[in-house]
Amino acid sequence: LVSRTNGTNKTSENGRVARAKVLTIDTMNPTVKNAKYAVRGPIVARAAELERELNEGMKKPFDEVIKANIGDAHAMGQQPITFFRQALAICSYPELLNDSTFPEDAKSRAYRILQSCGGNSMGSYSASQGIDSVRQDVARYIERRDGGVPSDPDNIFLTTGACDGIMTMLKLLVCGEGPTRTGIMIPIPHYPMYSATLVELAAVQVNYYLNEEKCWSVDISELKRALDEARHYCNPRALCIVNPGNPTSQVETRQCIEDVIRFAAKERLFLMADEVYQDNVYGHGCRFHSFKTVLFEMGPEYSNTMELVSFHSTSKGYMGECGFRGGYMEVINMDDEVKAELTKLLSVRLCSPVPGQALVDLVFNPPQPGEPSYDNFIKERTAILSALEEKAKLTEQVLNTVPGISCNPVQGAMFCFPRITIPEKAMIEATEQGQQPDVFYCMKMLEEAGICVIPGSGFGQKEGTYHFRMTILPPIDKLQILLNKVKEFHQKFTQKYS
Amino acid sequence: LVSRTNGTNKTSENGRVARAKVLTIDTMNPTVKNAKYAVRGPIVARAAELERELNEGMKKPFDEVIKANIGDAHAMGQQPITFFRQALAICSYPELLNDSTFPEDAKSRAYRILQSCGGNSMGSYSASQGIDSVRQDVARYIERRDGGVPSDPDNIFLTTGACDGIMTMLKLLVCGEGPTRTGIMIPIPHYPMYSATLVELAAVQVNYYLNEEKCWSVDISELKRALDEARHYCNPRALCIVNPGNPTSQVETRQCIEDVIRFAAKERLFLMADEVYQDNVYGHGCRFHSFKTVLFEMGPEYSNTMELVSFHSTSKGYMGECGFRGGYMEVINMDDEVKAELTKLLSVRLCSPVPGQALVDLVFNPPQPGEPSYDNFIKERTAILSALEEKAKLTEQVLNTVPGISCNPVQGAMFCFPRITIPEKAMIEATEQGQQPDVFYCMKMLEEAGICVIPGSGFGQKEGTYHFRMTILPPIDKLQILLNKVKEFHQKFTQKYS
Repeated sequence: LVSRTNGTNKTSENGRVARAKVLTIDTMNPTVKNAKYAVRGPIVARAAELERELNEGMKKPFDEVIKANIGDAHAMGQQPITFFRQALAICSYPELLNDSTFPEDAKSRAYRILQSCGGNSMGSYSASQGIDSVRQDVARYIERRDGGVPSDPDNIFLTTGACDGIMTMLKLLVCGEGPTRTGIMIPIPHYPMYSATLVELAAVQVNYYLNEEKCWSVDISELKRALDEARHYCNPRALCIVNPGNPTSQVETRQCIEDVIRFAAKERLFLMADEVYQDNVYGHGCRFHSFKTVLFEMGPEYSNTMELVSFHSTSKGYMGECGFRGGYMEVINMDDEVKAELTKLLSVRLCSPVPGQALVDLVFNPPQPGEPSYDNFIKERTAILSALEEKAKLTEQVLNTVPGISCNPVQGAMFCFPRITIPEKAMIEATEQGQQPDVFYCMKMLEEAGICVIPGSGFGQKEGTYHFRMTILPPIDKLQILLNKVKEFHQKFTQKYS
Repeated sequence: LVSRTNGTNKTSENGRVARAKVLTIDTMNPTVKNAKYAVRGPIVARAAELERELNEGMKKPFDEVIKANIGDAHAMGQQPITFFRQALAICSYPELLNDSTFPEDAKSRAYRILQSCGGNSMGSYSASQGIDSVRQDVARYIERRDGGVPSDPDNIFLTTGACDGIMTMLKLLVCGEGPTRTGIMIPIPHYPMYSATLVELAAVQVNYYLNEEKCWSVDISELKRALDEARHYCNPRALCIVNPGNPTSQVETRQCIEDVIRFAAKERLFLMADEVYQDNVYGHGCRFHSFKTVLFEMGPEYSNTMELVSFHSTSKGYMGECGFRGGYMEVINMDDEVKAELTKLLSVRLCSPVPGQALVDLVFNPPQPGEPSYDNFIKERTAILSALEEKAKLTEQVLNTVPGISCNPVQGAMFCFPRITIPEKAMIEATEQGQQPDVFYCMKMLEEAGICVIPGSGFGQKEGTYHFRMTILPPIDKLQILLNKVKEFHQKFTQKYS
């Protein structure tokens, strides 16, 4: 009855006018339509459906769906850090300042945060850039982390999770048309928020491939190849590095970071360092080096001129507080006029959520030795990080025992991204069903084993190679079950299609 | 030393290469640069500066800066609703479920919210559309509000404040190039988030003027004029209505809403109803009518076909919880494929902040008669709304005693938008200083009286008319002082330039 394509009204049999919809898939913003985001795509939707079916008593080859598709620690059973939640409760309901069961350090942190809020309430808007005292605490944290390299609170912008900061910076950078359109260099594989945002901004995505043979490290020659090719059709202006990597879990060496900075300086690229997994480092001999420290160690020729922005978040690390959407970015050597425009851009959304800002403050100004919550805080943090380290090793070990699966060491972050061999026959069947081979593989794993992981094609991968991403977040006993199920599934799948 | 315009590197005297910045005001995204947002513009920045100068002991013609520039209730001293904050504290720190000093209804609400969170923690991501049970509670609230008109939780999307929802909907609607580029009809005067977002999206802003002579009401003939003119140069696809109005505070009549719906239906426009001030109605004989109720009362010819989205928020009303960035939108008759694209678009940012979602749940599912918190909740809510009503009347009364200021009744919302007469000589001096006359006026008011309000030009106004927006939020005694200062300033200003 209703016309979809031409958008005009039609008269139906009873003489009534049936209005065509104004907004249809054919008349909506095409850049939104073209964006892809696999982390919450059809496989995840099917997983939710299967859970409902299980709850309704339908029989499946499994008793529960194990979701290993997203880095969502608390959903996987990780407990919040007590101190953070005590202080947040006080910030929400300041009457608790008088409650003798709450520790003094949680009270003093909460009191300081409330003093910095309009009307001493988290219900007030903050400054667009974020609460002053929170930005000060973040700057002091960065200085401690970077061995004294100075950090200016004026360079700190609080954001709604890290992705808000990344999207905002990308938006600032995009201009030009046709061959002068802004190009942004991103790693392949990459977290698909990057590509989805670039499509939305109609920016040109410039792919550089991480070196799977060298544990997914960044290769300067590959950066150069990608850049030189891109210069034929766009204006590459920024280089995004994710360290530790997502989905690839590598931790870049200090030397690699220095080489990247030299490359970006020489090629006049704005550096965007996504460092949200900086507390998640497990690999033997691996250490997190911030881009900023390395930049400053390289001397004033670099530290006085190179434009760098680093992103961090309260969603990952040991705290895993994804739901609060807290984050910050630090901009280095950003042009003052651009900084003013950045503040204006943020101001249209008024401010990032104040509970998230409060959490940022707590995470980057945690209990200190001698304070009442210190021992328990260290105990909780250590337990979480040790468990993650154990799970990283277990995941790598078990997967590498499976013929047809090979997995780089999980040096950091909270994922593994194993390479899988898909038999020829399976590829043919996938093609017949109009699916990518790795989507076909992951969908089968979900339907047969109840395991929800994301196909490598959602992150990008070298032509002809196949992977999936799974998190290492489930509790160790459940992770063990999950890994055994993956193993069993892969063997059956290989057998079936051989 | 560093070249700003051509962007290449230069060799300085000592032979070092001074790198030109990649990102400058000339090479940044021009749409971001062109966006304006007066609510946090230069006058507000100057107000903050003056506050610092006062704190440092500098002498000023006033003792304090009174900020009446933004609808930020808690910052103006309004206290949070106890029940909301108790439940939020429990959600933050679930140990409080065992605390006997917290009321049972706050506990049961918090428990229900936590049960709907992954791992029973606000630290988990929610579904991109928002927590299921929260959307159910919102749908039930809408049904109660609209006298039983059905609301489907699948049509509810939780957002990061209302502006996030508005920006997202606008983004979906924009397409085409040149004369087929999407046009969006917005009221003049309007809240500048709309125009800033349209600039960012490179959409065409189609102005329709509110009728100041008829208490800022919407005029169908004016809508028609604006639409017909716009059709020569763009493709107008959506009509935005803000009711109650911001900055204009009018409350639309039921008849007007019906006429607007007929107009939008006839002209095939997507209706966007910004109804965030629906609880803020004070005018004699005024009542809030939701667009959705009126649509359904008009019968299936309209209710089955008209595309409508309504926005609401936890930032305004009696709760004024701006900092939590909670909000929702309800979409009516939206194409299913577009709805799926909307969910995908939201999923790239993962989810709106979970504490804000929790607050949405509490606000739209408040204590009921017989529950322990009910009496106190009603007492607190009534006190706030009565005070706002009193302040709305006081503001209108006092301002209308000033020759050269005339102010429509403050029927709703939390602002007044008086018209001011600016003497010829002041206009000349403003022009000499390169300022709009109303900016000049407001800047003088700030410097001489310490009152921070926003010039009408930040919201748009009919050529040759001048206004300012001030909130009615300060406590009544401070509002009285503020109004007297405005009166005194206006008299002195008029005298000086006459």
